[in-house]
Amino acid sequence: MSEKSFIDKLIESIRQKNNPSVVGLDPRIDMIPEQIKTKYFKEHGKTTVGAAYAVFEFNKMIIDAIYDLVPAVKPQMAFYEAFGQEGIKCLVKTIDYAKSRNLLVICDGKRNDIGTTAKAYSDAYLGETSIDGEISWGFSCDALTINPYLGYDGILPFSENCAAHRKGIFVLVKTSNKSSGEIQDLETKDGRRIFEIVAEKVSEWGKDMLGVNGYSSVGAVVGATYPEQAKILRKIMKNAYILVPGYGAQGGDAEGAVNCFNNDGLGAIVNASRSIIYAYKQERHKSLYGESGFAEAARTEAIRMRNDINGALERKDQIDRKTAL
Amino acid sequence: MSEKSFIDKLIESIRQKNNPSVVGLDPRIDMIPEQIKTKYFKEHGKTTVGAAYAVFEFNKMIIDAIYDLVPAVKPQMAFYEAFGQEGIKCLVKTIDYAKSRNLLVICDGKRNDIGTTAKAYSDAYLGETSIDGEISWGFSCDALTINPYLGYDGILPFSENCAAHRKGIFVLVKTSNKSSGEIQDLETKDGRRIFEIVAEKVSEWGKDMLGVNGYSSVGAVVGATYPEQAKILRKIMKNAYILVPGYGAQGGDAEGAVNCFNNDGLGAIVNASRSIIYAYKQERHKSLYGESGFAEAARTEAIRMRNDINGALERKDQIDRKTAL
Repeated sequence: MSEKSFIDKLIESIRQKNNPSVVGLDPRIDMIPEQIKTKYFKEHGKTTVGAAYAVFEFNKMIIDAIYDLVPAVKPQMAFYEAFGQEGIKCLVKTIDYAKSRNLLVICDGKRNDIGTTAKAYSDAYLGETSIDGEISWGFSCDALTINPYLGYDGILPFSENCAAHRKGIFVLVKTSNKSSGEIQDLETKDGRRIFEIVAEKVSEWGKDMLGVNGYSSVGAVVGATYPEQAKILRKIMKNAYILVPGYGAQGGDAEGAVNCFNNDGLGAIVNASRSIIYAYKQERHKSLYGESGFAEAARTEAIRMRNDINGALERKDQIDRKTAL
Repeated sequence: MSEKSFIDKLIESIRQKNNPSVVGLDPRIDMIPEQIKTKYFKEHGKTTVGAAYAVFEFNKMIIDAIYDLVPAVKPQMAFYEAFGQEGIKCLVKTIDYAKSRNLLVICDGKRNDIGTTAKAYSDAYLGETSIDGEISWGFSCDALTINPYLGYDGILPFSENCAAHRKGIFVLVKTSNKSSGEIQDLETKDGRRIFEIVAEKVSEWGKDMLGVNGYSSVGAVVGATYPEQAKILRKIMKNAYILVPGYGAQGGDAEGAVNCFNNDGLGAIVNASRSIIYAYKQERHKSLYGESGFAEAARTEAIRMRNDINGALERKDQIDRKTAL
């Protein structure tokens, strides 16, 4: 138990790199530069094998360009599963490569099931699998996103592995998409909305897993696209680290995302995927970097995002101080 | 569009085999017969490779023993993911083998995400992935279980593929586990519970996808462990096919499960996993079949389950007729 908890490792890296942002690795084959695709399609055809090789080379170059800047990467599992078993091989290589670059890896799989089955998911991503007494690992990530619809017995197997293996989870509370309100915003008899009730549960589920910084390895997901709800949720889940999707391509901005932070400047990590890794497609980077400079464009955009969020955090801090006077 | 819809294929097979049940393929390495494990552990060690080979041979023998009896199998993805990329290879082989035996394959992955990402999951399991114009497939299953917490834009990409590729989805409404009520049973201002609201949405989401039998390819998951809620849900979702987990090892019985059926004897398919595939471990089968007869024990138990459910359906039908007089 001498190893730091997930959340303390995350906070240490955020402080070291002065950057509370995470880069999403969401491989879409039509967005990957031609020169990479051509190389592997020549060798393996336009197949899942060729695509998986191309994606890994792309991921590797993105990781090389940003690993000293950001504390963590977040592979979105759907995009790997779209290439079947070849995509999964690519995911495993991507996780291992990111870890070799000292990045924390948050797998965005939104997994969940009933207790006995949730244990298998938990062991797959956060724990270990015993094969007749020999220990194996499915995926060596540091944290996983989790869906709360099934209640606590679907959460417990994950939080148990968080404690045993120094891992983390981020439970969906208020998601960034347009129709997230259909269920999450429903108001219960006592006037609380579902996302508020889930937030209270997240607080409860994580209360015994606080690290030295006062934050829990049981975190939450709150979209940057809902800044008003974020304010409320920040207060309900005082000790939860919030993973904030929706910044960038989805329309959320830094001013919205900072509502997920506490006054200590901690408490949230903001994700951007498309706007960083496919930055070379944006007008502002196109002429400077071209397609072959995609990794440098990603680095430039990752720096811009870091400065954008840190700037908004400083402005928030000034307002907070004035209000406190 | 001459091919039948998923739900009509399912109903046709249920009628042909006179069996509204499905066998869950949930591989737990410690439950797999020693002679299979020994063979592959000798070759590949007690590794994920050895385990995945053992699981596939086990699945193959189970499928061979039950394919003429049941309309569908349901691999629970968590148990494959626990073996990492080797487990996924085993899942692909299992799906393909089950399909070669004319079984429908319902992947139990409980996937969901925001719209653009849900599309990647949907393409992975129910659709196709275009790789620079060439079509590839991730997993060739017939249906997938889906989590509704993110609302309609996370469902639409799945129902689109159901229509385009004659596939199906089963949306979690009321799950079989003990703590399912923590969120699903919350009562909203107007007195409806969350699971009832989700059920209304499932009805709405599936209303344009009715097959010739009047059932939709957008189905629902309702646990056999909640028979009273099942009665209510059956009425709300008149056209949804209900996948019923919780029978057998989880404590649900046939009398509870039949509440998910309509008066036409259709409308639900009951899953059992452990109680069928590991039947050889039960006292009542142990002495007759021994470990080497595990597949026959599974067949015997699958027949017992079929008769159990059909018997309960007949009793329900008699009560319904009397009530109607």
